[in-house]
Amino acid sequence: MDALAAPEEAAAAQPDSGLLSPVRAGTAVEAAVGDTAWLQAMLDAEAALVRAQVRCGTVPARAGTAITAAARAELFDVRALALAARGTANPVVGLVAALTREVARQAPEAAEYVHRGSTSQDILDTGAMLVASRALRPLLADLRATAGSLAVLAAAHRDTAMAGRTLTLHAVPTTFGLKAAGWRQLVLDAVARLERVADGGLPVSLGGAAGTLAGYLQYATGAAAATRAARDSAAAGGSGAAADIGAAGGAVPDDALDALVDAFAAETGLARPVLPWHALRTPIADLGAALTHTAGALGKMAADVQVMARTEIGEVAEPGGAGRGASSAMPHKANPVLATLIRSAAVQVPALGSVLAHCMPAEDERSAGLWHAEWQPLRECLRLTGGAAHAAAELAAGLTVHPERMRGNLDATAGQIVSERVSAYLAPRLGRAAARDLLTDAARRARRTGRPLGEVLAELPAAGGVLDREELAELLDPERYTGVAGPLVDRALRA
Amino acid sequence: MDALAAPEEAAAAQPDSGLLSPVRAGTAVEAAVGDTAWLQAMLDAEAALVRAQVRCGTVPARAGTAITAAARAELFDVRALALAARGTANPVVGLVAALTREVARQAPEAAEYVHRGSTSQDILDTGAMLVASRALRPLLADLRATAGSLAVLAAAHRDTAMAGRTLTLHAVPTTFGLKAAGWRQLVLDAVARLERVADGGLPVSLGGAAGTLAGYLQYATGAAAATRAARDSAAAGGSGAAADIGAAGGAVPDDALDALVDAFAAETGLARPVLPWHALRTPIADLGAALTHTAGALGKMAADVQVMARTEIGEVAEPGGAGRGASSAMPHKANPVLATLIRSAAVQVPALGSVLAHCMPAEDERSAGLWHAEWQPLRECLRLTGGAAHAAAELAAGLTVHPERMRGNLDATAGQIVSERVSAYLAPRLGRAAARDLLTDAARRARRTGRPLGEVLAELPAAGGVLDREELAELLDPERYTGVAGPLVDRALRA
Amino acid sequence: MDALAAPEEAAAAQPDSGLLSPVRAGTAVEAAVGDTAWLQAMLDAEAALVRAQVRCGTVPARAGTAITAAARAELFDVRALALAARGTANPVVGLVAALTREVARQAPEAAEYVHRGSTSQDILDTGAMLVASRALRPLLADLRATAGSLAVLAAAHRDTAMAGRTLTLHAVPTTFGLKAAGWRQLVLDAVARLERVADGGLPVSLGGAAGTLAGYLQYATGAAAATRAARDSAAAGGSGAAADIGAAGGAVPDDALDALVDAFAAETGLARPVLPWHALRTPIADLGAALTHTAGALGKMAADVQVMARTEIGEVAEPGGAGRGASSAMPHKANPVLATLIRSAAVQVPALGSVLAHCMPAEDERSAGLWHAEWQPLRECLRLTGGAAHAAAELAAGLTVHPERMRGNLDATAGQIVSERVSAYLAPRLGRAAARDLLTDAARRARRTGRPLGEVLAELPAAGGVLDREELAELLDPERYTGVAGPLVDRALRA
Amino acid sequence: MDALAAPEEAAAAQPDSGLLSPVRAGTAVEAAVGDTAWLQAMLDAEAALVRAQVRCGTVPARAGTAITAAARAELFDVRALALAARGTANPVVGLVAALTREVARQAPEAAEYVHRGSTSQDILDTGAMLVASRALRPLLADLRATAGSLAVLAAAHRDTAMAGRTLTLHAVPTTFGLKAAGWRQLVLDAVARLERVADGGLPVSLGGAAGTLAGYLQYATGAAAATRAARDSAAAGGSGAAADIGAAGGAVPDDALDALVDAFAAETGLARPVLPWHALRTPIADLGAALTHTAGALGKMAADVQVMARTEIGEVAEPGGAGRGASSAMPHKANPVLATLIRSAAVQVPALGSVLAHCMPAEDERSAGLWHAEWQPLRECLRLTGGAAHAAAELAAGLTVHPERMRGNLDATAGQIVSERVSAYLAPRLGRAAARDLLTDAARRARRTGRPLGEVLAELPAAGGVLDREELAELLDPERYTGVAGPLVDRALRA
Repeated sequence: MDALAAPEEAAAAQPDSGLLSPVRAGTAVEAAVGDTAWLQAMLDAEAALVRAQVRCGTVPARAGTAITAAARAELFDVRALALAARGTANPVVGLVAALTREVARQAPEAAEYVHRGSTSQDILDTGAMLVASRALRPLLADLRATAGSLAVLAAAHRDTAMAGRTLTLHAVPTTFGLKAAGWRQLVLDAVARLERVADGGLPVSLGGAAGTLAGYLQYATGAAAATRAARDSAAAGGSGAAADIGAAGGAVPDDALDALVDAFAAETGLARPVLPWHALRTPIADLGAALTHTAGALGKMAADVQVMARTEIGEVAEPGGAGRGASSAMPHKANPVLATLIRSAAVQVPALGSVLAHCMPAEDERSAGLWHAEWQPLRECLRLTGGAAHAAAELAAGLTVHPERMRGNLDATAGQIVSERVSAYLAPRLGRAAARDLLTDAARRARRTGRPLGEVLAELPAAGGVLDREELAELLDPERYTGVAGPLVDRALRA
Repeated sequence: MDALAAPEEAAAAQPDSGLLSPVRAGTAVEAAVGDTAWLQAMLDAEAALVRAQVRCGTVPARAGTAITAAARAELFDVRALALAARGTANPVVGLVAALTREVARQAPEAAEYVHRGSTSQDILDTGAMLVASRALRPLLADLRATAGSLAVLAAAHRDTAMAGRTLTLHAVPTTFGLKAAGWRQLVLDAVARLERVADGGLPVSLGGAAGTLAGYLQYATGAAAATRAARDSAAAGGSGAAADIGAAGGAVPDDALDALVDAFAAETGLARPVLPWHALRTPIADLGAALTHTAGALGKMAADVQVMARTEIGEVAEPGGAGRGASSAMPHKANPVLATLIRSAAVQVPALGSVLAHCMPAEDERSAGLWHAEWQPLRECLRLTGGAAHAAAELAAGLTVHPERMRGNLDATAGQIVSERVSAYLAPRLGRAAARDLLTDAARRARRTGRPLGEVLAELPAAGGVLDREELAELLDPERYTGVAGPLVDRALRA
Repeated sequence: MDALAAPEEAAAAQPDSGLLSPVRAGTAVEAAVGDTAWLQAMLDAEAALVRAQVRCGTVPARAGTAITAAARAELFDVRALALAARGTANPVVGLVAALTREVARQAPEAAEYVHRGSTSQDILDTGAMLVASRALRPLLADLRATAGSLAVLAAAHRDTAMAGRTLTLHAVPTTFGLKAAGWRQLVLDAVARLERVADGGLPVSLGGAAGTLAGYLQYATGAAAATRAARDSAAAGGSGAAADIGAAGGAVPDDALDALVDAFAAETGLARPVLPWHALRTPIADLGAALTHTAGALGKMAADVQVMARTEIGEVAEPGGAGRGASSAMPHKANPVLATLIRSAAVQVPALGSVLAHCMPAEDERSAGLWHAEWQPLRECLRLTGGAAHAAAELAAGLTVHPERMRGNLDATAGQIVSERVSAYLAPRLGRAAARDLLTDAARRARRTGRPLGEVLAELPAAGGVLDREELAELLDPERYTGVAGPLVDRALRA
Repeated sequence: MDALAAPEEAAAAQPDSGLLSPVRAGTAVEAAVGDTAWLQAMLDAEAALVRAQVRCGTVPARAGTAITAAARAELFDVRALALAARGTANPVVGLVAALTREVARQAPEAAEYVHRGSTSQDILDTGAMLVASRALRPLLADLRATAGSLAVLAAAHRDTAMAGRTLTLHAVPTTFGLKAAGWRQLVLDAVARLERVADGGLPVSLGGAAGTLAGYLQYATGAAAATRAARDSAAAGGSGAAADIGAAGGAVPDDALDALVDAFAAETGLARPVLPWHALRTPIADLGAALTHTAGALGKMAADVQVMARTEIGEVAEPGGAGRGASSAMPHKANPVLATLIRSAAVQVPALGSVLAHCMPAEDERSAGLWHAEWQPLRECLRLTGGAAHAAAELAAGLTVHPERMRGNLDATAGQIVSERVSAYLAPRLGRAAARDLLTDAARRARRTGRPLGEVLAELPAAGGVLDREELAELLDPERYTGVAGPLVDRALRA
């Protein structure tokens, strides 16, 4: 960056350091998908490609060493590369030029081997897979930590009764253990989906200009020809060039290409695709789908925490700490900021994931725009979801649970929360419809008068005949109507 | 429907019979997800639930038979149910009432057992899983047929050279076989993702009012109590009611619930979930993700067909037939309507799928709105994707390929399409940068003058020294620069 | 529909009568956008087109009368048209054939004039504008009714204090009047945006095959030529055909086309576009944007009602009625179904609206798929938003407000809700930072000990010096800290 | 930033400098919405707020001067603010602390007046409106420049005939002038929508903690009381505090608040809202809608350019220049990168805009997450659309048009492109249906045999009787069948 850059350009140089996205600011996943990390991943792809060609014997070993040595992000100006990308619609063209210059500076004879036979998309897509692979590590770690904390919560509160709520209203009792077990189950679902992608779903991209690998082959043929020519010259002379022209000439066997893909996969640690995937975007779509699921799964926990943390409900509280949750206006506030951050991500990711899906119908061997539209949304999906996972880990580990408030809230309807039970209990005696009508009527009276359901019921002749006071008291105890919440927690925790 | 319905209501009764969605009109998948099918699936869920309770011994067998007999969609007025749903926000409340009436009409004593212990969401979600399961059958069949046809195309055109295109321009040659193999690969990716959902990802929903199964348990307890009471009375008398009150009382063992879930799964053919999933929406999100992938995969084929079918390109043509592709204005038109229909679906599904993702953060034990927002988008995802798959099957089976137009188009740039090859060929001789500059310059001259690249190159002194005419002719033959397109097709078809 | 249709086809014939979309089932807007209504609108477009040609003198008047007479939806089989649309990717080709047959049956000589010079898109797009125009009427009426009811609520509760909530927690007091005024303001914003579209933003579509109106001109020329030829023949004979060939020949002046557009606009009541808009989709995008805004605006009211209706909060209740809000499981439930329905729409519409935006980059003179992808999402946007508006009108008219619960909830934090005020009051005395720290500390103590903030404050030496008990009591009264909520309500209601 | 920051943190400090978003890298709009610009806008909001309070006489003038002097972005560490935002879910809490420190350093007595009575959302929302206002300037300038260039193109090519294309196939002729006029019309539509927002749709946010402005009022009351107290003390002594306690006490008249809003609006240059809009998100939704429209409008031009630039079509070429459009693999490539960049934005913006719509249903007086989810998508909408507009301006100004290729392509179907015309010409002679069938048949024969339509027609007996060779030749000339394309261009350019 020019030291004399105008203020405006200086501002431009700081387009986004996280100010508007607190959910991911400062997280490991943000660092793993930042411009520097992405640049390094593309450099890693270039270096791995050369080393793969060295493995295949078509490039001298010292070129691999030299290019690897030069492929360090700190030697490059990421902003200059971004600006240059506007002229070619992708950052690789400029990166190849800059890397070639750097290699030429360090080891002139190796410059010839930078990006040999390659194409921008092989480097950017392989880089994207490396970035994703690296970003999934802290993300998965945070999800596993979250699941672990939730398992503890679920076990500890296996039998902590609370109001089950449907359509915002008290429905029937449940337990906080079952709720926490449900959150954990969703997190485990997300982990399973992300692991499926991480384990085999992140392939190298190796297709050359239009997916036939012809460029790689042509250079390899040239190398083979040069080797043979050197040998032949030594023996006698004569050119034989026509026979060595390349691909179709067959001087390099087809399985040499398999060897190149294998070597590239080995050098990068990525998977081997069935076909070059420049225009077959399953790996990107899979990432989008799994990350979208994850953001939604975390969003569920956040949504519940937001309900339960409400002033009037007060059943849980977020972990506090110095300044955590402070308001700029109200001294008394301790805002549930972790759930807020998670929700802010959960609202964005489905839309960003849908962009990745919209990019699947890529025309031709490389789309004029749909490929280019993937990069930023993929990054955002990773860092928003990763940031949300980090917040979730902190939230699950530090959540304060108030069983006494849960118990108190269970009584908020003075018995109505178990109307289903009384109705079911009476059904064999009165008939199901009559029992239900009785309870509907009683609940309506109770609401209107503000009296406990039990009192109202006791006075209704229809109920009086079949329910004695002792039965009624037991039936109306919310803590005795949690169904199999406990065994469900046990089952879920075994899973 | 009232025969005297006002015209407005008659119109309302026909809200959507497919007029605005030709991609799915008349397809098997449309029938499988229509209101009638959905109604039947919910009725199937009600009937299966009773039969499951019969299996568990808590409901008399004849109730199962009677309710199953009444649970036939044609006995119900789907429009009336839709209208009633506005009062309760879901169609199950009205359906239960209607089914109870119908059962009462046929077998009065069985009416008591309709929807016993159940909740709307158990029925609607189980119904949704049945609908999805049934809709996936024709969808998967069409995808497999598509993949089969594409395999034939890929094999037949393994070596049919055509222009590879990137960013809309001729890049380097490829083959139509490789393109068709790529389409197939995407379709197989979609099949794998859908099968993953179909095989184990579609669970019964069984949670009762708030996911604790307390209602089911309460009724089962009542049944047990009644049985025992009958037996006890016979023996001696005495009530024992308090001991039998239910869940927490433990009169019905917890594993009875496992038995109920197992029986329900067995009766429906659906999977068994780890936990009740009223507010844990992985099954819906998984469907959305897999269908979104599928629509995108088919969209890729459509996008390519649209390019290749263009008047100026003319490399493929859609299957014709009586009136197929006709225009209301232009007699000469034979529009690529199948690709058009597929694309119309591919543009919609990602957004509809994102709605399903947006519904994951469902608050409480049942969301007040996010659950309700899933139904129509899920249906649309199924029928749009299914319709697209049906069109794709027809398209792949009947696609006409014009190799001669492909060959002709390969010559459109008079040699520039293999500039990469010449550059790579010259690189060992001139240095890579010099070779590239030479070709860039030659291509620019060729474009400006409209002359073949070979002619221009032959005249450039820099090239003249290292390329003889024979070499050049061979290098410039596009059909000899298809890399490993052929072996890639072979590998893909083996996969 | 064939009476012998197989059961499967019968099911297919009922793809969607609203079962899965209770928010719009049975509403006027649903009827206004249903298949029958859409069919009628397209027929209206065909009839209006002929009448416009009659106005221009290029078609005999009796053809206009005859075609208008035949253009009645009940004469056509909408399902058959839907099925036929699969062959041509749009329903107009089949409709033109069917309409021509019907006209030929009624008035054979008029059949010649059906769809003369026209193209499918002119009819479908004009039909879409008619549908939108008709659907906006009940939608706007419901919005205006909603705003009216909200004005009443806002005025009635201008000074009803309640807890203002931010990030789910009590923040500072506000009034229910201000909240209702805010809901109303959003509804008025939506009305303004929809009216902007309704008044001038819904144009006829008149472009002919590719937007040049050449077909209309050619037929008009032919008509002119025929007239002149008849006259000429009568005079002498001779052909003169070449001079009459058409457009470029200028036999029909360019302004005749202006006349045709004017006449078409007059016959339909729609606006006149600057240019044919087959591929310039502003009218559709504008509808999508305004409907998306409307759904979001209504969603805000629903979100607030859902919070306030929670069992623990209980500040409002939805209008009840026979069976309204009933649960299939729990007799005591009176679910907030109207807010639930509104929210179910508000979650879907942004995604559906985004499909319309995705369709703007329509390639060529008519896109192969992006046009076709608009129809169903546009319809869904209209009916979901319209259904939500209908629910909102009912909700606003019947909302029960519980000021005593609002008052009670204001005390939930025992004074902390006015911590900002005390802090601001002390700031001039202690310095702002010290005042804030004091309140932060006091609030933390109050939360920890469960004691009222006033008590805690009174004991703190720092506060004691500057606050006497009387001042403190007044400062801590939440009803005296509602700022300018009242005047804001007044201002908003004047707007 | 700490100089000893670990490498990982250094990477994190560069999360996004544009590397993955070439469409906006280096543009003015990117600078206008970057973190530095956003920080400055929030500081401008703080400073304007104090100056507004000075205007109202509740804060001493020197505090306004001092705070304004300190409110310069370069004095703050944007990354540190981003990191701090994770603790409070928004960057304002930390910013207020940092600004207060800075003011205290420069002018200790003024620190008291920073953010007085305010809340984070007032500052962030007002800052967002300032950012939007500033970003819309270069965006609108680029759109107007684009429209200007397109007007020149449309006029210059008013009569340049080219193939009109529908569903990818040649339909009937049109002109390039009409196409360019259509692009311009869409751009003007976008300008109108953005101007509507820019002129009055960007209001200050001034609500205080929960939208009642109570905090502002309380401080103003304190100031008034202090003034009066000082005066009173001078006169006699005595406290009178209770009377001055604040808002409800009425010591500051309600219209003082109007004065504050007016002053804030005047100081910022923003509009005055009807109500505080913390939870009434019309301004954000309007921006989202207008930007989404704009991206779609530009996407249309890009889509057409991509079709017309195809190798086989070659009707237009993008402006070239040093390295512009270069490929990393293929020396001959001059990729249409501007259209590619525009399309990459057009695919993303609808989804990002839909996030803003999803945030409208904000619960309570400030949503716990929906507010926070707006910031980054709003920024992305601005900079992607702005970057696309910048590319469009360059594209429209430098587009090369090849009329000879357009003419050549018109002949690609050897007459079929005017089949509509011949059909319409024959209709009065043969009847419309017979004429159409004749042409359908002839076109089919022509396609099958590869012969010109004219030749085939001349041989068909049905046509022979009514068409002489001279008429036919004239009818078949595509350049004579462009309808009113020319007059439409004239009309559009007058608009």
